[in-house]
Amino acid sequence: MDFAYDGRTEELRASMLEFMDHHVYPAEKVFEEQLEELEDHWAWDSVPVLGELRAEARKRGLWNLFLPGADNAAGGGLTNLQYAAVAEISGRSIHLAPAAMNCAAPDTGNMEVLSQFGTPEQKQRWLEPLLEAEIRSAFAMTEPAVASSDATNIATRIERDGDEYVLNGRKWWITGAMNPGCSIFIVMGKTDPEADRHRQQSMILVERDTPGFEIHRGMKVLGYDDREHGGHAELSFTDVRVPLENLIGGEGDGFGIAQARLGPGRIHHCMRSIGIAERAIELMCARADDRVAFGKPLSDQGVIRDWIAESRVRLEQLRLLVLKAAWLMDTVGNKAAHTEIQAIKIATPATVEWILDKAIQTHGAGGLSQDFPLASMIAGIRTLRFADGPDEVHKNALARTELRRQQGAREARG
Amino acid sequence: MDFAYDGRTEELRASMLEFMDHHVYPAEKVFEEQLEELEDHWAWDSVPVLGELRAEARKRGLWNLFLPGADNAAGGGLTNLQYAAVAEISGRSIHLAPAAMNCAAPDTGNMEVLSQFGTPEQKQRWLEPLLEAEIRSAFAMTEPAVASSDATNIATRIERDGDEYVLNGRKWWITGAMNPGCSIFIVMGKTDPEADRHRQQSMILVERDTPGFEIHRGMKVLGYDDREHGGHAELSFTDVRVPLENLIGGEGDGFGIAQARLGPGRIHHCMRSIGIAERAIELMCARADDRVAFGKPLSDQGVIRDWIAESRVRLEQLRLLVLKAAWLMDTVGNKAAHTEIQAIKIATPATVEWILDKAIQTHGAGGLSQDFPLASMIAGIRTLRFADGPDEVHKNALARTELRRQQGAREARG
Amino acid sequence: MDFAYDGRTEELRASMLEFMDHHVYPAEKVFEEQLEELEDHWAWDSVPVLGELRAEARKRGLWNLFLPGADNAAGGGLTNLQYAAVAEISGRSIHLAPAAMNCAAPDTGNMEVLSQFGTPEQKQRWLEPLLEAEIRSAFAMTEPAVASSDATNIATRIERDGDEYVLNGRKWWITGAMNPGCSIFIVMGKTDPEADRHRQQSMILVERDTPGFEIHRGMKVLGYDDREHGGHAELSFTDVRVPLENLIGGEGDGFGIAQARLGPGRIHHCMRSIGIAERAIELMCARADDRVAFGKPLSDQGVIRDWIAESRVRLEQLRLLVLKAAWLMDTVGNKAAHTEIQAIKIATPATVEWILDKAIQTHGAGGLSQDFPLASMIAGIRTLRFADGPDEVHKNALARTELRRQQGAREARG
Amino acid sequence: MDFAYDGRTEELRASMLEFMDHHVYPAEKVFEEQLEELEDHWAWDSVPVLGELRAEARKRGLWNLFLPGADNAAGGGLTNLQYAAVAEISGRSIHLAPAAMNCAAPDTGNMEVLSQFGTPEQKQRWLEPLLEAEIRSAFAMTEPAVASSDATNIATRIERDGDEYVLNGRKWWITGAMNPGCSIFIVMGKTDPEADRHRQQSMILVERDTPGFEIHRGMKVLGYDDREHGGHAELSFTDVRVPLENLIGGEGDGFGIAQARLGPGRIHHCMRSIGIAERAIELMCARADDRVAFGKPLSDQGVIRDWIAESRVRLEQLRLLVLKAAWLMDTVGNKAAHTEIQAIKIATPATVEWILDKAIQTHGAGGLSQDFPLASMIAGIRTLRFADGPDEVHKNALARTELRRQQGAREARG
Repeated sequence: MDFAYDGRTEELRASMLEFMDHHVYPAEKVFEEQLEELEDHWAWDSVPVLGELRAEARKRGLWNLFLPGADNAAGGGLTNLQYAAVAEISGRSIHLAPAAMNCAAPDTGNMEVLSQFGTPEQKQRWLEPLLEAEIRSAFAMTEPAVASSDATNIATRIERDGDEYVLNGRKWWITGAMNPGCSIFIVMGKTDPEADRHRQQSMILVERDTPGFEIHRGMKVLGYDDREHGGHAELSFTDVRVPLENLIGGEGDGFGIAQARLGPGRIHHCMRSIGIAERAIELMCARADDRVAFGKPLSDQGVIRDWIAESRVRLEQLRLLVLKAAWLMDTVGNKAAHTEIQAIKIATPATVEWILDKAIQTHGAGGLSQDFPLASMIAGIRTLRFADGPDEVHKNALARTELRRQQGAREARG
Repeated sequence: MDFAYDGRTEELRASMLEFMDHHVYPAEKVFEEQLEELEDHWAWDSVPVLGELRAEARKRGLWNLFLPGADNAAGGGLTNLQYAAVAEISGRSIHLAPAAMNCAAPDTGNMEVLSQFGTPEQKQRWLEPLLEAEIRSAFAMTEPAVASSDATNIATRIERDGDEYVLNGRKWWITGAMNPGCSIFIVMGKTDPEADRHRQQSMILVERDTPGFEIHRGMKVLGYDDREHGGHAELSFTDVRVPLENLIGGEGDGFGIAQARLGPGRIHHCMRSIGIAERAIELMCARADDRVAFGKPLSDQGVIRDWIAESRVRLEQLRLLVLKAAWLMDTVGNKAAHTEIQAIKIATPATVEWILDKAIQTHGAGGLSQDFPLASMIAGIRTLRFADGPDEVHKNALARTELRRQQGAREARG
Repeated sequence: MDFAYDGRTEELRASMLEFMDHHVYPAEKVFEEQLEELEDHWAWDSVPVLGELRAEARKRGLWNLFLPGADNAAGGGLTNLQYAAVAEISGRSIHLAPAAMNCAAPDTGNMEVLSQFGTPEQKQRWLEPLLEAEIRSAFAMTEPAVASSDATNIATRIERDGDEYVLNGRKWWITGAMNPGCSIFIVMGKTDPEADRHRQQSMILVERDTPGFEIHRGMKVLGYDDREHGGHAELSFTDVRVPLENLIGGEGDGFGIAQARLGPGRIHHCMRSIGIAERAIELMCARADDRVAFGKPLSDQGVIRDWIAESRVRLEQLRLLVLKAAWLMDTVGNKAAHTEIQAIKIATPATVEWILDKAIQTHGAGGLSQDFPLASMIAGIRTLRFADGPDEVHKNALARTELRRQQGAREARG
Repeated sequence: MDFAYDGRTEELRASMLEFMDHHVYPAEKVFEEQLEELEDHWAWDSVPVLGELRAEARKRGLWNLFLPGADNAAGGGLTNLQYAAVAEISGRSIHLAPAAMNCAAPDTGNMEVLSQFGTPEQKQRWLEPLLEAEIRSAFAMTEPAVASSDATNIATRIERDGDEYVLNGRKWWITGAMNPGCSIFIVMGKTDPEADRHRQQSMILVERDTPGFEIHRGMKVLGYDDREHGGHAELSFTDVRVPLENLIGGEGDGFGIAQARLGPGRIHHCMRSIGIAERAIELMCARADDRVAFGKPLSDQGVIRDWIAESRVRLEQLRLLVLKAAWLMDTVGNKAAHTEIQAIKIATPATVEWILDKAIQTHGAGGLSQDFPLASMIAGIRTLRFADGPDEVHKNALARTELRRQQGAREARG
């Protein structure tokens, strides 16, 4: 057992920290302002300072690092564990750093899918421009009318008609889709509702301008429209026709591809969330030292101290859990790491939300306002308690696994 | 001891419930839509459906009920305890019902101040149009640079110069002030920084169009600009001159007036928050019955049941505490009810925020969106943990009182 | 609505407080020592100082006050609400005061049952000596092999054989039964397992020395054997024969009698628990003022202050809830007060356990030891989370009621 | 970074698990019964089955494994990280396994002190019989009259008088001391109250039968006297004279030795506590599968599932934190691992107590009784929230470190 980062990771961390200090943090306010001034307020992708940061990130080799595998020329050839350390640091500037490094969801997951399951033609047409950040993408799975935590509930239909597939259905919370630069959608639907539970679904590529495909409105999260990463759209598909070659993998592969997409995405999300929490602790400590009430700085108040200590102790535990899950994915594979991947999904939002709440409280009303990044952070983290199914569903499943494991152990002992 | 509402209260409750069912709830969506369509998006006060509701409320005698005292011709002559029951019901439609009944903060507190401490001229000029809802008002106390929970920190100056007072200072989180119809401001500042701690401050009336008075921007709360009640403005006063007769009470009376304003406001806030929580429980139960996951409605899931039961049990306790505080104010006065008024300030946001969080979680991602009122409710409730000073300050003070009380008891026992 | 105690209650409270200060508190250590010195260590009832306190309580009219009803000559003719205030104060010396006033469980519940459902002969033979504290009693319902929260699970049989009933079964956690002076047992068993769910059970009186009735061992709670109130026994009945006239009520009445016994017992338990919590706050404040660490008393530490404030705020809410439940029982009856009686069962142990935990922590290791009453208090309170069924069962039921109520309201609104 | 145990650890774990299954678990009930039957109820060390287990452990090489360092002939030459895995498993049978392996506190810490700081004579006289489990020892630091979390508060005096030291003072919570076989005490006292804060204290060896040394009583923990590991004694020293050569190290070294003793002890305690939690989860799952209420096993109830999942997720995080602290001690030393050692002291009792509480609740009242090990486990864990100072003191210190670290980072960034 060894808790030290390896040499490659340490180099990347150093490189990341320098990039953050000299380029990303100074650009945060600029990004916000330029975003406000955009003609199309959803076109976050075209904000000038983001372009500059992207150029800088490429120059520094901090580009597409999320793409796994030593043999992957486009990415950094990193393991999940190595990339996890990078993702954490990028989370400290959650709206800017991941995007600057072309490592922002949902494009990362979509690029993984295309990289792993795409045909050469699909890769050339969509993966390559995505890797260059020339276009953006969305992943359309969640539906408004059903509990999406249960994949068999999906109602969108993908029906073959000659040399085309015809899509009908409705989706919402499709992140990134309000951005006019989001030109390609990976859509999950059912090709065969009569097949086995996990062979009913398929994934298909739909271009933005396809007739019958409509983008209705942006969903808000608390009061935020999340324009800085393309919002969350409600979409509909009415007799949308796409060529057969737009299918990813074969018919019925949709559920399997979705599962494969899930593991690394969880690690990324969780590590970035830890970066958010680190930023929050940093802000909380600075504020506590700075603000004086009733004759002494807040940092001398016992209750504030308690929050700071609890934040540190909880976050250290969480980080180790996420890193271990990444290591398991690298060593035994996503499937064998299933329980740990579930565990980090449960643990991360609870811990990070708690820390953010205390950081906000330390700031007084300002902490909820646009003057500090804490309010938008907590709104984002709050959504993680539903994302990919509510925590309660995951806890139920994890408990079932534990009960089975314990039952097995009892039987083994006789 | 008697836990039943009196006859007058029961009548008012019945009247309120009917008003809510037939007029307020149906107007909620309309209000939102008309607000969106306003030319000046801050002029919430001029939304047509609100005018209609106001007329209806007046017709039904549900107007200015907040104004306390049997001898008060303008109000309903209600006790704090009687009005508390009314306030709770109005909280179920928090953005609309209080405004429709001319019972919304901060106008209520401001009308109380004018009613209690204003000169006949001040009453005629500002209280009367406020009671008619012809104008709106704001209360400018909180400042950005200092911990406002400590009133001696106030930095705004009010200096006499001949037959005028000259104001200089900066305020923020001034609720209602973004509304162009908000024409009068009660401003707290220091007339004599050398006086005793609680005699340094005075309150003065400043009209919106006074030279040197600027309204800079609206503060946001978790992404919301709260336009539906006039936002929260950052203001500045630069050599703002107002006539001597705009002072409320005498020089040095500011702290005392602020204290007097506090008690009833707390009761109102807390009871409306309980109404919010009741609405949340209602929505949570409806959703839980309606939504099916993994083969059964959410309302059959043990964890959801646990949330519903906890919500009910916590809310019942909270309501009784607030009602008792109101009763104490009626029977022994605001001062003797001080600990209880502090207690409800501590207990209310914690309980109501918890209930809202569970109601949101029961709704899935939709719960955080514009499709349900829950997200904006939780944003509003979250601010109560800072309003009038962070909870931690109040807990500290309440503990000091308890320690003193116990010490007295020990000494009495010898 | 009126939150003041009535005159009779105020008189009783004053009388109680004087009795506690001058007699009960000074006797606590003596009781412990005399209990240690008893020949039969289970015969708590015979401790000399307890006899003295009983005489004193009688003299002061603080005897059998629990017995409800204006027409009850033996008791004080108090309402549930009036007695609640008395019970709270007695809880401050939980091992001594209730026993001194002949108001300790389980005798109180048993006397109520006999008073309400007993035949004249039963009353003469067992109720009268119980009212005189000449004998003690137990209530045998819980069984080791089944989840007793579900009354239909009861496995003990009561079968008629000629002019006798024959009992077979096993019970545990039968409080008071280890005391040799506990001479009469009310036993719950099934007379007709084929009847309707709630008509299968009957209650019958069994004397301690009946052949076939064995007392096996005392159950411990954490490390306590609870000898100071007769422990908690495991019992068995093997062909135990009792005369027909020992049945309470008729065959099949058992469930109904158990329900009737429940309501007032809950109020008593909860109010005494509030008294425990008050004692804990008192000890916590005294310790915090007294103990110096790192240069200042604990009472100047923010975290300790936070505990004290939270304790006060939570306890005030809880007391009001319990008092309201008592008032409902007085005004609309136990059945209509069902939800509130459930609510106090859920709320009380959670709140009081939290307060005790903080009081203990303020005392350091001593708080867990025999040097302070806090450790045995928390052990007792912890059992309330199971008593009469685990809290989780009650929450589930309360949620079901709430869901039904909300459904009704939705339907009424159309 | 590598989360796998090394080969040596895996071997030891396998060996431990076999020892537990075949020898320790079957002996648990026997140990309890034999303990009850002892003539001197405190002489736990002489229970026959313990002797048999010790012989078995030695045969298997599971003896004195706690002693660190590759060069230590007596121990297993394990690193802290390797031993941590062993300690965890021993914690599953907390009253028996550590003692059977001669790895139980406080003897372990005392042996470490003698091994590291003892003279050859001290080692021969006391370390050797301790390593053979021929005698037992105690560590006397905590005092009743002062907050012991602050070492400068120690009031016991050690004064030189010719060729002897004279001790005067009072200690309590001295674990193991009620055992008549506990023949040697390491006592902390002040040799020079005028020296620097951390040079005032010294440690000295005192034999049990030294005149003037009295053992007064056993302290209880929630009703338990903890006889199965020698209880917790209150002691006094009245002009107790011991030869100069009984001093450990030099005068003024006491604080430093205490600090050195602390780190490994924390790891051991925390890992054993994790073993306790694993046992609790095992019992909780078994009970949940086994117990039926309202028609289905508890393991199908959502709330119980939630507890099981939370238990697993929290415990995995905690274990990683403790293992990392052990690894830091091995790689950078106890001093550099200070914050992590503090963090595990804070995190462990909170997490393990929570899990035990839920395991108990799943068992119903039986969970608090002598029929399951859960009640005595939670009593033991509860004491950890005070041991070596209350958690609040440690949180305060950890927060101060964090604040300083963040301040340094702010300054470094300019």
